[in-house]
Amino acid sequence: MEKGRLEAFSDGIFAIAATLLVLEITVPHLEEGGSLGRALLDLWPSYLAYGTSFLTIGIMWVNHHSVFRQIGETDHRFLFINLGLLMLIAFVPFPTVLLARYAWGGNGEAAALAYGTTLTITALFFNLLWRYAAWDNRLLRPDADPVEVSGISRAYLPGPFMYGGATLVALVSPEASAALFLAVALFYVGSSSFFGSDEAAET
Amino acid sequence: MEKGRLEAFSDGIFAIAATLLVLEITVPHLEEGGSLGRALLDLWPSYLAYGTSFLTIGIMWVNHHSVFRQIGETDHRFLFINLGLLMLIAFVPFPTVLLARYAWGGNGEAAALAYGTTLTITALFFNLLWRYAAWDNRLLRPDADPVEVSGISRAYLPGPFMYGGATLVALVSPEASAALFLAVALFYVGSSSFFGSDEAAET
Amino acid sequence: MEKGRLEAFSDGIFAIAATLLVLEITVPHLEEGGSLGRALLDLWPSYLAYGTSFLTIGIMWVNHHSVFRQIGETDHRFLFINLGLLMLIAFVPFPTVLLARYAWGGNGEAAALAYGTTLTITALFFNLLWRYAAWDNRLLRPDADPVEVSGISRAYLPGPFMYGGATLVALVSPEASAALFLAVALFYVGSSSFFGSDEAAET
Amino acid sequence: MEKGRLEAFSDGIFAIAATLLVLEITVPHLEEGGSLGRALLDLWPSYLAYGTSFLTIGIMWVNHHSVFRQIGETDHRFLFINLGLLMLIAFVPFPTVLLARYAWGGNGEAAALAYGTTLTITALFFNLLWRYAAWDNRLLRPDADPVEVSGISRAYLPGPFMYGGATLVALVSPEASAALFLAVALFYVGSSSFFGSDEAAET
Repeated sequence: MEKGRLEAFSDGIFAIAATLLVLEITVPHLEEGGSLGRALLDLWPSYLAYGTSFLTIGIMWVNHHSVFRQIGETDHRFLFINLGLLMLIAFVPFPTVLLARYAWGGNGEAAALAYGTTLTITALFFNLLWRYAAWDNRLLRPDADPVEVSGISRAYLPGPFMYGGATLVALVSPEASAALFLAVALFYVGSSSFFGSDEAAET
Repeated sequence: MEKGRLEAFSDGIFAIAATLLVLEITVPHLEEGGSLGRALLDLWPSYLAYGTSFLTIGIMWVNHHSVFRQIGETDHRFLFINLGLLMLIAFVPFPTVLLARYAWGGNGEAAALAYGTTLTITALFFNLLWRYAAWDNRLLRPDADPVEVSGISRAYLPGPFMYGGATLVALVSPEASAALFLAVALFYVGSSSFFGSDEAAET
Repeated sequence: MEKGRLEAFSDGIFAIAATLLVLEITVPHLEEGGSLGRALLDLWPSYLAYGTSFLTIGIMWVNHHSVFRQIGETDHRFLFINLGLLMLIAFVPFPTVLLARYAWGGNGEAAALAYGTTLTITALFFNLLWRYAAWDNRLLRPDADPVEVSGISRAYLPGPFMYGGATLVALVSPEASAALFLAVALFYVGSSSFFGSDEAAET
Repeated sequence: MEKGRLEAFSDGIFAIAATLLVLEITVPHLEEGGSLGRALLDLWPSYLAYGTSFLTIGIMWVNHHSVFRQIGETDHRFLFINLGLLMLIAFVPFPTVLLARYAWGGNGEAAALAYGTTLTITALFFNLLWRYAAWDNRLLRPDADPVEVSGISRAYLPGPFMYGGATLVALVSPEASAALFLAVALFYVGSSSFFGSDEAAET
């Protein structure tokens, strides 16, 4: 299995999962005399959930490339850890609908738990993928930069804890939990935009 | 992040968003004795909305490449501006259904406003993406053609105003607004077909 | 616009349109005591429609590559003719559902007409795309093989007539028309498998 | 038809089919006072079916590449055998829904038979694709490794029998049949992870 083909397949799954998210936004069926404008405003939890999941999948795609940029070869275990990761990414649209429909209603707890559990396991798989490849330089490029390698190891560590924490918050307040998932994504975008710009890569 | 990979991911989102549009066309459920032919003709707003959005996404894909052709490197901010743009492109199928179902009925105003607002924000993001990259030649190729660069800057400027204008028309006539979105797309196709043919690129 | 990127985008649309076809096959909702096996057998028109459209899109994808193999450059008109072609390909899932649900029932005529009209217009666009590129060698590779070029011109000519003819048959018998669309696809697969094998291309 | 383009198109269909699987998981509509958490737990057959099909499609994608790695050229018959294979892969989401909804209920037999028949025919097509290419070295690379070639021939042979056997089990117990499909996938992942790691490929 060449690395390039594995990347292209993974990119495809990331892109399709992100684009399928829009199908979760239900077009309102209006009652006689109902106002479409009002119905569209009432869909705000769907827009929030769409934005949260799209950003989160986008960030995970960026991270996936950070991993693959350091990889020089692949083996079957790496292949299947990656397949497990993709299975979770492709699953995200389902808990996203749950979050959109139920997080701000009476069943918010289960919805936020389902969403958060999915993201937490995904973050665990990311750590597994990276640590399997980086352990003892197993699959790294011969010229992989040790500073960047240990930087990635450090950067991935808090992911499962952050998502796991935001998930546990759902037991107290599903709304706060849902807001935290968005905050995590926005914080990541913000911090890497302001502090990571020097990593610009020439083509 | 290499530019090629970013392009491939973006292309995937454009292609999927455009192809998902067909799912908005609802297959008619016929009453006893109903005519399928008649029901299919009554779906003309869906065909119009499909054509408008497909062309618009296609044109935005062409513009996305004009931007990337001038780009030599990327940074994290550029990456996330692009992700925001893709989030909007992938969202287009939703307001397209609204336009198809409601633009020519009693709730046309909200539908056309939702559609137009999406396209207007998308056009703003295109300007942001381009101006971020082109400002002070920040991310441009060293050999980027200054004439083409300033040509793109000029060409992208009217986009938000045109879409914003067509959106405001919805307050007076949703039907006219919907027609304008199609007209903008057809005008773009027509003008670049007749005046832009000399830009033919060798492989 | 580089040719490679245009091909990749087109390939994406072909692949997605073909894969979305499966969504048209409705999972049966069983009545109390209903037999799933029987319900699945009753879905045979859906399987036929799926097979017909998948093969047809696959064949059109093969033809699309025959065109692009002879192309050396592109221009804006070619770009938009291609976009029109893709808009039709991405539309195919809709008439496919119509064919699956209605071709073998009381409303077969409109369903087969809608399906056939889509394929006929698609075939016309294929001719337009090719003839625009080949006219006076406008966009052909400098080393394009004249024998292959005139072979493609001849091969594409009958498409609109075959599909148009099969469409008109719907006025007499929608079932025969639906069978003809499948027969055309199978005939193409069969004839190029048995007579075209010498065109094997080295990598 | 160049091999690279055929691979890219095939990869697209594999990726899209796998990602569409998530659409089969129906978001529960709760009765007044219903518990979402309970409803989500009751969906376990959907999660199982999702995991089984995602893994199976992933494994088939890995195998597809094993074939293509040995291929040096293509011909029209190979092209259409591959198209038939893709038609089956893209069909998998449909029997997956059947398995999810019906395998653990009163209509399990037909659901498991439909699922198993699809996988069995897919495995037959895989053998056909490979044996057509490998027969008398018809389409193999000139430098194809004879050991690897006969290894693939041996490895693909049991596929149809394993899937066919698991399908027949449905006549006795649909639940056991469904469990076997998952077991086959997990066994494949496990065995190639533990015994196949030395096949690591440098980039």
